Amino acid sequence: MIRYPGLIIVLSILMVASWALASETTHDPYKEYKTHFQPITEKYVDNPDNPVTPEKVELGRMLFHDPRLSKSSLFSCNTCHNIATWGMSKLPVDIGHKWRRTPVNSGTVLNAAYYEAQNWDGRAADLEEQAKGPILDPHEMAMPSEEFAVERIASMPEYVQRFKVSFPDEPEPLTFDNIANAIGAFERTLLTPGRWDRFLLGDDDALTEDEKDGLKTFVDSGCSGCHDGLVLGGGFEMLGVVEPYESESPSRGRYDVTGKNEDMDVFKVHTLRNIEHTYPYFPDGAVWELDKAIDIMAEIQLGFEFSDSENKSILTFLKALTGEIPEHALKLPVLPASTKETPRPDPD
Amino acid sequence: MIRYPGLIIVLSILMVASWALASETTHDPYKEYKTHFQPITEKYVDNPDNPVTPEKVELGRMLFHDPRLSKSSLFSCNTCHNIATWGMSKLPVDIGHKWRRTPVNSGTVLNAAYYEAQNWDGRAADLEEQAKGPILDPHEMAMPSEEFAVERIASMPEYVQRFKVSFPDEPEPLTFDNIANAIGAFERTLLTPGRWDRFLLGDDDALTEDEKDGLKTFVDSGCSGCHDGLVLGGGFEMLGVVEPYESESPSRGRYDVTGKNEDMDVFKVHTLRNIEHTYPYFPDGAVWELDKAIDIMAEIQLGFEFSDSENKSILTFLKALTGEIPEHALKLPVLPASTKETPRPDPD
Repeated sequence: MIRYPGLIIVLSILMVASWALASETTHDPYKEYKTHFQPITEKYVDNPDNPVTPEKVELGRMLFHDPRLSKSSLFSCNTCHNIATWGMSKLPVDIGHKWRRTPVNSGTVLNAAYYEAQNWDGRAADLEEQAKGPILDPHEMAMPSEEFAVERIASMPEYVQRFKVSFPDEPEPLTFDNIANAIGAFERTLLTPGRWDRFLLGDDDALTEDEKDGLKTFVDSGCSGCHDGLVLGGGFEMLGVVEPYESESPSRGRYDVTGKNEDMDVFKVHTLRNIEHTYPYFPDGAVWELDKAIDIMAEIQLGFEFSDSENKSILTFLKALTGEIPEHALKLPVLPASTKETPRPDPD
Repeated sequence: MIRYPGLIIVLSILMVASWALASETTHDPYKEYKTHFQPITEKYVDNPDNPVTPEKVELGRMLFHDPRLSKSSLFSCNTCHNIATWGMSKLPVDIGHKWRRTPVNSGTVLNAAYYEAQNWDGRAADLEEQAKGPILDPHEMAMPSEEFAVERIASMPEYVQRFKVSFPDEPEPLTFDNIANAIGAFERTLLTPGRWDRFLLGDDDALTEDEKDGLKTFVDSGCSGCHDGLVLGGGFEMLGVVEPYESESPSRGRYDVTGKNEDMDVFKVHTLRNIEHTYPYFPDGAVWELDKAIDIMAEIQLGFEFSDSENKSILTFLKALTGEIPEHALKLPVLPASTKETPRPDPD
């Protein structure tokens, strides 16, 4: 029924060719700037050693919100990594068991799956390892032992069943490692793509002109030297390259983990995604204002001062990095009832 | 087109009449037992002085989950009335500011809108009044003053706007009273109808035979003398009618409020809805097991001992009182960012 099939094919080839040519000649003024960054395009960050499954994520959500993972039963993971306040508390340093204080700021759990390693000093290799730390830390959830944590959780039949389903190939599914694995799997889904990602994927209108100008200022000033990639951060860098960062915190970053001089004051570069919401800033959480944090970074990392308009331009760009907390992350679980076997809360 | 309209009308009348007759003669063996109780049939419990509106409920949800309503910014309403654990903490008495302890157990916020008055001692007339207490209590959220609470919230433009929309007719929408009114409106939607309500509304199969037997044991023993109505509780009664309730708690119930001798050890009757999830029991939260709580009540309130089978029967009935937490109650809000004007957290 097609009268001139040859002609149609030729025309099609010409159309595709002219479109390709036009695309190549269209100038994207931000093309070079975009090369420093990558968009979030996935629903979760998988881990071959701990594959993300719906069952594990649901179990992880429950454990993340369960205060019985703390000795006193007052604190859950969500206390210091509150999803309602963008994956962290709003305290400079956190308050834990018996009103003890943590040495550093909690940092956000949102998009943390993309970090090279976890904690400000990188002492945990991944989210699964990180999840174990606060549960046992006497300044945080203060559980007396891994065994005690397992005993609490294993006392509830619903949890036992969910561990079986979440770790079907394991002879002993309910272990301390798997408590952390489930929490890690849930945290691997806490990604917040937004306008910034749509911009990187080609939607020029996703950012305003001021925000795009801010991107230029940000990159041209050298900020993207450390704040780059998927989360504009996530690697490790010295804090205080040009001048020391003034702090009362005892933490010396990776040095505390490795003991190597070259790691002195080397900290994880906090993601700039959602940065307007993840104050207070720096490892000691001492700085509340984002514009002030920008000035401090210029001074101690880059060795110069921003003009007011440069500071404002970068601030405008940073606010464009706010994404959307996915709906499933904002769902509270209904937790199973304790039983006669559940070890009771211990506030002492 | 209808050949015999008269006949059809006559037949219809006969059918309706015979159905009505059959219904009347069908014996409902639980009819008398049901008269002690009422089902939840509404989505929320309105308050003419603080009408429940969607805007106010959404604002209330935000405030309910906002830790900035506590001096330290560690505690939100949800800390001690955790929706994930059935509207209360799982602590005998709660932990508040600087690890101080509350004198009594938190009690659940679920279905609390139906209570005659709030708190174990009834010191707050309604949910709106109750909401103010913990915010200012030095043992709980420890805000230094009403003004300070308003200052924190009013420092965030999104909150200011939401108060305007939620209280449109008021010249000054953002007040301490309206913080409590919004929280109260949210709490008025925290109702958990379930199988029990379907049973009361006529679905005989909503309860098992054992559960229905348990209802009989419950009523015949006299439990429904105090645990009746919409939430099987909610009024005020003396705890320890026959024998005193042994407790180390300093609370003497309504006597602490009124100073009247007749109010000594008179406490609010806690709802039995979701009772298997709202342990630990009694004003001091000293009893963890529901079967033990049943025995204590028989002994000190009714003056006799339940046989094992009676205890088990009542336990079976009580577990049938577990409802469903509505989906909207399990939604975490995304809270607005603090600003330069927001008073900082104070852990001291």
